[in-house]
Formats: sequence, C-alpha cells, structure tokens
Amino acid sequence: MSSTDKAVRRAKFEAVWKVVKQELVDHIKEQGMPDDVVDWFERNLEYNTPGGKLNRGMSVVDTAEILKGRTLTDDEYFKAAVLGWGVELLQAFFLVSDDMMDSSITRRGQPCYYRVPRVGSIAINDSFMLEAAIYFLLKKHFRSESYYVDLIELFMETTLQTEIGQLIDLTTAPEDSVDLNKFSLEKHRLIVTYKTAYYSFYLPVALAYWLCGIPAEYTLKGKTVKPFELAKDVLIPLGEYFQVQDDFLDYSGTPEQIGKIGTDILDNKCSWCVNTALARATPEQRKILDENYGRKDKECEARVKALYAELDIAGIYAEYEENVYKKLTGIISDVPEGGEGTVKREVFTSFLSKIYKRQK
Amino acid sequence: MSSTDKAVRRAKFEAVWKVVKQELVDHIKEQGMPDDVVDWFERNLEYNTPGGKLNRGMSVVDTAEILKGRTLTDDEYFKAAVLGWGVELLQAFFLVSDDMMDSSITRRGQPCYYRVPRVGSIAINDSFMLEAAIYFLLKKHFRSESYYVDLIELFMETTLQTEIGQLIDLTTAPEDSVDLNKFSLEKHRLIVTYKTAYYSFYLPVALAYWLCGIPAEYTLKGKTVKPFELAKDVLIPLGEYFQVQDDFLDYSGTPEQIGKIGTDILDNKCSWCVNTALARATPEQRKILDENYGRKDKECEARVKALYAELDIAGIYAEYEENVYKKLTGIISDVPEGGEGTVKREVFTSFLSKIYKRQK
Ligand SMILES: [Mg+2]
Ligand SMILES: [Mg+2]
Ligand SMILES: [Mg+2]
Ligand SMILES: [Mg+2]
Ligand SMILES: [Mg+2]
Ligand SMILES: [Mg+2]
Repeated sequence: MSSTDKAVRRAKFEAVWKVVKQELVDHIKEQGMPDDVVDWFERNLEYNTPGGKLNRGMSVVDTAEILKGRTLTDDEYFKAAVLGWGVELLQAFFLVSDDMMDSSITRRGQPCYYRVPRVGSIAINDSFMLEAAIYFLLKKHFRSESYYVDLIELFMETTLQTEIGQLIDLTTAPEDSVDLNKFSLEKHRLIVTYKTAYYSFYLPVALAYWLCGIPAEYTLKGKTVKPFELAKDVLIPLGEYFQVQDDFLDYSGTPEQIGKIGTDILDNKCSWCVNTALARATPEQRKILDENYGRKDKECEARVKALYAELDIAGIYAEYEENVYKKLTGIISDVPEGGEGTVKREVFTSFLSKIYKRQK
Repeated sequence: MSSTDKAVRRAKFEAVWKVVKQELVDHIKEQGMPDDVVDWFERNLEYNTPGGKLNRGMSVVDTAEILKGRTLTDDEYFKAAVLGWGVELLQAFFLVSDDMMDSSITRRGQPCYYRVPRVGSIAINDSFMLEAAIYFLLKKHFRSESYYVDLIELFMETTLQTEIGQLIDLTTAPEDSVDLNKFSLEKHRLIVTYKTAYYSFYLPVALAYWLCGIPAEYTLKGKTVKPFELAKDVLIPLGEYFQVQDDFLDYSGTPEQIGKIGTDILDNKCSWCVNTALARATPEQRKILDENYGRKDKECEARVKALYAELDIAGIYAEYEENVYKKLTGIISDVPEGGEGTVKREVFTSFLSKIYKRQK
C-alpha cells in the first residue's frame, strides 16, 4: 500500500473519531454537567485515544473489508470504524493506567497523561471513563443488532484477559525488586498472550466476524471450520511472535531503526531475551544475569548484552521466527475458502505479512 | 429488626459471597495462571469487597422480598444475592480507586488497599479486576435470562454516572487548592446525585425490578405507573438527602455518635454545609470562609464551625430534612398498590425509614 493510500485510510478512520467523540461529549453535556467537566472529559478522550498508530482499530475495518470481499458501504464502514474506535478506547484505558503503574514519562511523544498539570491521580478515574465510553458507543450503534450482547461480552472478556496479563506482569517483574527466579519462558508466554495478544490481534478480528455475520461453525469443502477458534489458533501465537519480536528489537535494534533506545534490560522487563538466556545459561552465566539484570546501570546492561551475544540470542531468535512463520503459514493454508460469510485466508496473512521480518 | 435477625441475614448474604468468590478464583485458575497470581486475585477480592456494612448489596435481596411479598425461594435468593454482590463489587472498584485519588489512609478499619505492602499502584489494575468480576458473574448466572442485557446496561450506565460524579468532585474540590468560587448548592447536588445516589440507591432497586419481572409501565387503579422512573423520582432525592445528612453529621456529630472525627472542613470537601453557608454568607462571612475553609489547621476549622453556628446551619438542616421527608412521603403515598409484578410502597419506605432522623 502506498503512503498516500495509508494517509487516506487513516484520515477516513479519524473522521469517525470526530463523530463518536462528539456523541460522547454531547452525552455528558445533556446531563447538565458544568462546562469545565465537559471540557475535561473531551480533553481526556482527545489526549489519550487518537494519537497512536491506530493499527488495532483500523484492522477491524480492514478485516471486515477482506471478509466482505468488496468496499464497505458507508453504513458498514461507519459501524466497523466504531468498533475499531472501541478497540482504541480499550487500549487508551490500558495505556493511561499502565503508564501510572510503570511511572512512565512519555507516551506517543508527549507527557504521559497523568503527568499533565492538574491531572495527576485523577487519571485513574479518567481511564475508567475511557472504558465506559466503549459500552456507551456499543449501545448507541448496536443496540438493535442481534449480536449486540456478543460484542459486549467480547469486549468484557478481552478486558479481563488483559487485566490478568497486567497482573502477571506486575507481580512477576516489579521494577524495584529483581528476582529472576520468577521469570520463565512459560511466564513470558502467559504475560504476552493475556496482556497483548488477545486485545491487539484476536479482538479486532472477532469484532469484524460479528459485524460480517461469520457463523460460529460451518462446513466447507469437507472441512469443519470454527472461525473464532481458528482466529485464536492463529492470532494468539501471532501476537506472541509480535511481542517476542518487540523484545528482540529492544535488544538488537539501533535507535535509528526502532525510533527509541531499548531499556528492557535496565527496567527489569520480563523479556523474551532474558527468559531465553535464563533457559540456556550455565551456573556462571546465570550469576552474571542475577548480578546485572534490571539494574539502572549502563555497565550492567552492557554485561547482559555481551552475554546475549555469547548465547547467540540473535540466532535463536531467527530460528524461532522461521518456525512460527512456518507453523502459522501451515494453519492458514489449511483454511478452505468460500463465498461471503466464510473466513478468508487473507484475514490472517495480512497480519502475518506486516509482522514477518519486521525491522521496526 | 432485632440484632440477631440482622446477623442471620448478613450471614446468609455472606455465604453467597463465598460461592461467587470461588467461581471467580476458579475462573482464573482454570486458565493456568501461576499460584501467586491466583492468590493475589483472591486477596484483592477478599480485602476489598465484603468488609463494609453491605447495606447496598443486601438491599437488592430486601427489595426483591418486598416485591415478591414472600420469602424468596433458594434460587431467587441466590440470584438476588449475586446481583447484590455485583453492587458491592462495583462499590469496591470505586473505593479502591477513590482512596488512591484521595490519598486516604484507612478504610473500614484497615489500611487502604493501595497501602498494603507490595500493592501500591498495582491497586489500579486490581480495581479494574473488581469491576470485571461483575460482568463475569452476570454472564455466569444470568446469560439465559431475557433481562440479561438490561442488567449489563444498568451496571454500565450506573458505572458511568458514578465516574461522572467523581470527575465533578475531583475537579471541584481538589484537596490541595481551595477555591470556593467553584462550589455551589447546585454543584453539590450534581456531585451527590452522580457520585453516590445512582449506585447506592437506584441501582439496587432497579436490579431487583428486573429480577422480579417488574414491567417498564402498567396501569393500576386508574393510574399509570412507570416503575423505573418512579424509583428515580424517589431514590435520587433520597440519596441526596442521605449525603446531606452525612455532610451535616460530619459537622455536628460527636465522635461517639458517628464513630469518627469529621474532617470535611479540613479536607476542603464540597459539603452541603459549606455550600449552604456560602449561599447565605454576607461579604464579611464569606471572607471568613475563604480564609479558613480547607486549611489543614484546627483553628481555621473552629472559625468555620463558629460561622456555621452563627448561620444556624443546624436549623436550616432540620428544615431541609422535614421538607424532603414530606415530599418523599407524598410521592410514595401516591403509588397505587396491587399484586405480584407491581411496585410496593414499602420498597421506598424501607429506605426512608432507615435514613430519616438517622443519628449515625
Ligand atoms: Mg508500561
Ligand atoms: Mg506495565
Ligand atoms: Mg518493548
Ligand atoms: Mg474518598
Ligand atoms: Mg474522593
Ligand atoms: Mg462524609
């Protein structure tokens, strides 16, 4: 896709944000709230929701288009985009609160929301309001659809999954107390699956399924397809792969390449790299990790990086990448393809091709 | 009701907590979460949900019993109690986060949850999980009921209302910056209605309505009854009355009487007392308020209290109390009474009689 196409696509999606944001603001206004409260809510929505890459939200629209096999009608587009903004609001809810829990400084090139003057811990309640906005919009635009309750449940369940993922992450890798005994590749898989994969990859596709009337099960060319299970089987490992890649780039990517300086080693992150190192370290190497991981010290970080090189983390990563690519390609190519109301392979290949061998 | 009856009622309600808590814990366990994560979640549920007076939760059961006009069957009781625990979980979600935003020290005779060692800001995510627990339980126990989606929407809407109330409160009366120009009796009414009345009074009754199959509208003895609107008309002013009383007792009650030392004046609370004083103060009296309200200083507090006495806040309160009692009694006595499936006056009088002339 050309960069102009991309910009046009993004602008179209952002135009729907203007509409739904106004609906949310009007809802508060109609209840007779004072102007400063209405303005505060509007700033909360605007500061936290639309400033990211919007990949998650726009993938609802893209998936719906692939499933329909044609350009969406205006009404279909609008509905898909409302669901997409629901995903972005869910992410905003999580990012505002995650930045507070992590004491982060910046997000998307601006101060984290809680660091804006006069916001502070009010950001906790503001994050709640971002979440509540999702269900207000679902009611407003989907109340009369047969799948309304399914949309609600899908958002709810994904929310709980993400919260579980946060909890494992927060209790496994507190920034201020390093204990590598708590880490393992299995823990990493759990954290990544729950904290990221469900809401970033499975949720947008499952939302598009409901919108496009994809059934829970059908038989095609002699094969039984369970679209929601299939989506999980592909998109959860894919989300894991995405995060493993993110972890690997944090270690191996140059600042020019990844647009930031990796800090996972300094920050005691339960990264794929350290877990892979732990799984293969000799007692001597383990000692190096224990003594240097998660310290706010550049020399400690350099020692850990040297050990990663010694253990050939890059080679292990390349092998992992090939294996997961092969595995996912295998599952996808087994999907039988039919007409409208059935799953298309492209739903999954479009995600995989964006991620495979990604350098930033 | 005798104190033994009360204890029996409470114990029965608490027995349902044991069941639903286990369902929640099992749900996390079944997904293969590590033991420490399961234990953490269980402690979160147990520390924050069942330790209060349980008035809100038990009023779902009480209201259902009044509406049915008989003892509930075991199944009816259980369902009503699940909804009651939903209200208590919603309150727990709000209290955990409110205590963080207010930097409070203790709650229900123990340290606020965020002050428990190793919890800290993880309490933000833990509060989210208390909220998510509500919808897990609704799905588990009400998925097949025709009113399942109405229950979800009712909880959702009440949640947003309470968050709006918090936002008005937080932006009107930040503890660290005193500006009495932001206060007014109208602001007080808005805060109290949204932050407290909807979830504490309207929500439990509306939940019991759905459970008991109360219709949205019916005609009886020549009168058209709209039960949900009626409930709002009675319970929102009643909730406001409850909070006005709470504010008044904070000023006038002795520690022996109210079980704590009032700190609203010191804490810059947007209390009914200060708003009433502001509405009646001469420019000289206003100056006293500006200079002494919301300062962490016992002498300033004493000056404000002297002014309250001068303005006869106690007399104004007594008058307010009589007026609201008369008004509510009037609305309630207009309700026509019929058989099962209609509203009973006792639904409302039972609340009013618990609150009227309450001394603690
Ligand atoms: Mg973070
Ligand atoms: Mg985090
Ligand atoms: Mg990273
Ligand atoms: Mg408080
Ligand atoms: Mg507060
Ligand atoms: Mg009070």
